[in-house]
Amino acid sequence: MTNALPLNEAQNCVLQHCVPLGTENIDLLQSLGRVLAQEVRSNRDHPPCDISAMDGYALRAADLGVVPAQLAIVADIKAGDLPTLTVQAGQCVRIMTGAPIPQGADTVIRVEDTQAIGADKVQIDVSAQAGKDIRRRAENLRTHDVVLTAGTEITPGVLGILAMVKAAEVHVQRRPRVAILSSGDELEGLHDAFDANKIPDANGYALMAQVQALGMQPVLLGIARDDPAELRAKLQQGLQYDVLLVSGGTSVGVHDFVRPTLEQLGVQMHFWRVQMRPGHPAAFGTTAGSKIFCLPGNPVASMVSFEQIVAPALRNMMGHARLYRRTVRARLTQPLSHRPGNLEFMRVTLSRDVNGYLATPTGSQSSGVLLSMARADALLVVPNESKGLAAGDTATVQLLDGSVFQEHSVFSLVL
Amino acid sequence: MTNALPLNEAQNCVLQHCVPLGTENIDLLQSLGRVLAQEVRSNRDHPPCDISAMDGYALRAADLGVVPAQLAIVADIKAGDLPTLTVQAGQCVRIMTGAPIPQGADTVIRVEDTQAIGADKVQIDVSAQAGKDIRRRAENLRTHDVVLTAGTEITPGVLGILAMVKAAEVHVQRRPRVAILSSGDELEGLHDAFDANKIPDANGYALMAQVQALGMQPVLLGIARDDPAELRAKLQQGLQYDVLLVSGGTSVGVHDFVRPTLEQLGVQMHFWRVQMRPGHPAAFGTTAGSKIFCLPGNPVASMVSFEQIVAPALRNMMGHARLYRRTVRARLTQPLSHRPGNLEFMRVTLSRDVNGYLATPTGSQSSGVLLSMARADALLVVPNESKGLAAGDTATVQLLDGSVFQEHSVFSLVL
Repeated sequence: MTNALPLNEAQNCVLQHCVPLGTENIDLLQSLGRVLAQEVRSNRDHPPCDISAMDGYALRAADLGVVPAQLAIVADIKAGDLPTLTVQAGQCVRIMTGAPIPQGADTVIRVEDTQAIGADKVQIDVSAQAGKDIRRRAENLRTHDVVLTAGTEITPGVLGILAMVKAAEVHVQRRPRVAILSSGDELEGLHDAFDANKIPDANGYALMAQVQALGMQPVLLGIARDDPAELRAKLQQGLQYDVLLVSGGTSVGVHDFVRPTLEQLGVQMHFWRVQMRPGHPAAFGTTAGSKIFCLPGNPVASMVSFEQIVAPALRNMMGHARLYRRTVRARLTQPLSHRPGNLEFMRVTLSRDVNGYLATPTGSQSSGVLLSMARADALLVVPNESKGLAAGDTATVQLLDGSVFQEHSVFSLVL
Repeated sequence: MTNALPLNEAQNCVLQHCVPLGTENIDLLQSLGRVLAQEVRSNRDHPPCDISAMDGYALRAADLGVVPAQLAIVADIKAGDLPTLTVQAGQCVRIMTGAPIPQGADTVIRVEDTQAIGADKVQIDVSAQAGKDIRRRAENLRTHDVVLTAGTEITPGVLGILAMVKAAEVHVQRRPRVAILSSGDELEGLHDAFDANKIPDANGYALMAQVQALGMQPVLLGIARDDPAELRAKLQQGLQYDVLLVSGGTSVGVHDFVRPTLEQLGVQMHFWRVQMRPGHPAAFGTTAGSKIFCLPGNPVASMVSFEQIVAPALRNMMGHARLYRRTVRARLTQPLSHRPGNLEFMRVTLSRDVNGYLATPTGSQSSGVLLSMARADALLVVPNESKGLAAGDTATVQLLDGSVFQEHSVFSLVL
């Protein structure tokens, strides 16, 4: 029995071993959430020339010394046109948003500030400085400039930039292939016949969903019974993947086959226990080609240890710079007891008042009560040394998957 | 030309029309992020009986009046066993986490608080109250109890609960089928030959990614040129979908074919302008079977109006209760100018100090500069009436897709 590792050391340990796996080319359409493996340069000026930022009239600012001013409309220019005329004094062109500014014109006056006078004349009601409502050539992207650096996560905005430079294929970090194995004689599979004495395998599916939420599609290896040969075969199968998650099998009792079997299979174990609750019995090992995480059999402990240890490791393998759940500060609506000695993650819901976020524990904090996790918006972090928190105390909370959206629009009283 | 609608009224308008579409049964394995269309009841007690919360020894608390106490080990029980013996005074059983508590025993002492004395005897070093480290029958789920209500988003924790009640199929709200059409003669498609005078179609792909980030796979209808017949055919095709997003074509100039064509196709338009920047020229209409959003041609304006108007509508159609981006408060690191009269969304990056989040604008706030959106962590909300913000002022920011994770673990100095 090895000593429990502080969580920060456990995280450092997994991050040291779980590094990016290599790169691949993928279709731009499938690239959301992936991480660029090389810098991207612009292959063009964008916009390709000075263009209008508004629907209106392109003209010479010098003609608006006295307003209202009447100007002759000498052309219509829309986006995609290639105008060859030159706008002379007293003239203007009708112009659309995104259309090229013709020679001679230096200013755009938006249509709202004009009045039509017949088909070929317009009255301009306002004066303007030269350059108004013109978007300059290459103000967005300049040919050969680096527009995205390696390590950038492909968000919708980044994907738009990639489309702008016509990167139909993008060079990204590979995602780990993840397998999930549940273990235990007590478990009943999703498609097994109902047996009132069995425990349905929830962990395998919750872990699957946690992996899916990070943008990967794991393979479910099913349930390994407490039989050495079966367990060994399933573990061997799982070690063919980049990452193997084993749910259950981390207890210290005499029926624990997992540890000796892993050692027989050549897995080098780096830790067996972590100083956190729930999630204390979380283990990590490596082979030449695979990383293995053994997670607690208790469903909440399994999910919490995934969030703290496995998720940062998987995101590191994917090449992300941001490995940890977004945190915000929240005030407790009720006291929380805590014994010093373990970092603790309490399941809480979030609400708000004029002073910010409020955190309320989701009932029982027993690590067997998965409903407490299903109802949680966030995990409240109780530091090792804490002797408990009072109502009104402020703490750090990690936002969970369901809480990246909220009920309140920016128009609700409490922003 | 209709008047611009305040954004909150525009949001109310789209939410009134964009309602859930109906329900369907889907595989549990594909259900992450979907919304339950009916309540879910437990089909079993979970745990099915009193079980041990620890690896250790199940015994009678009354035997620990004086400790250390030596007890005879009369059996080994592991998870999945169905013990028939009764633990008598002076006896105990070796028990595994999750294993059933045998008759007679009322307490579990964890293995760390014991010392082995041969194979069939153990010394217990601590006393305990009856009930310690026992998880009670049905403490997690009770047969027939409602465990999840209709409208619940399927997060990993919820998916675990569904697996516990063996819901291999789940009844959920249907997702809208979304089509995306780009419009404009100036546009160059992703696979078109390079033309230095064209503008690559970035909006269509950024919108695709925004829809993907909400959990749907949109259909890309490509580019409609400024030709009435082509535009009409493409719009007709798009109106076969639950939702059609049209990028560009909302300008007021003479070359605008979109509006009359939509009217010819029987689309009832509800608004054409919204009091927000960027994103002012955003329009919304409906037919009997479809919702259509016309979004600005400027890429940032397109993305921001999607976030504020389309995303809440799509999430409402999916049955979500949480429609809006998570907001946090942040202090500005530099002043921001603002003209009263429009709600404004500034692209900012987030950082932190000991007092919380800091927001820094991502360079040019021109709505043509998509890089400002690609680099943004959040949208900072400048209210209509604001005359500008000073450095140090606090504002509300909406967290964007790339920012649901962060660099800092809970162990960084600033929580």
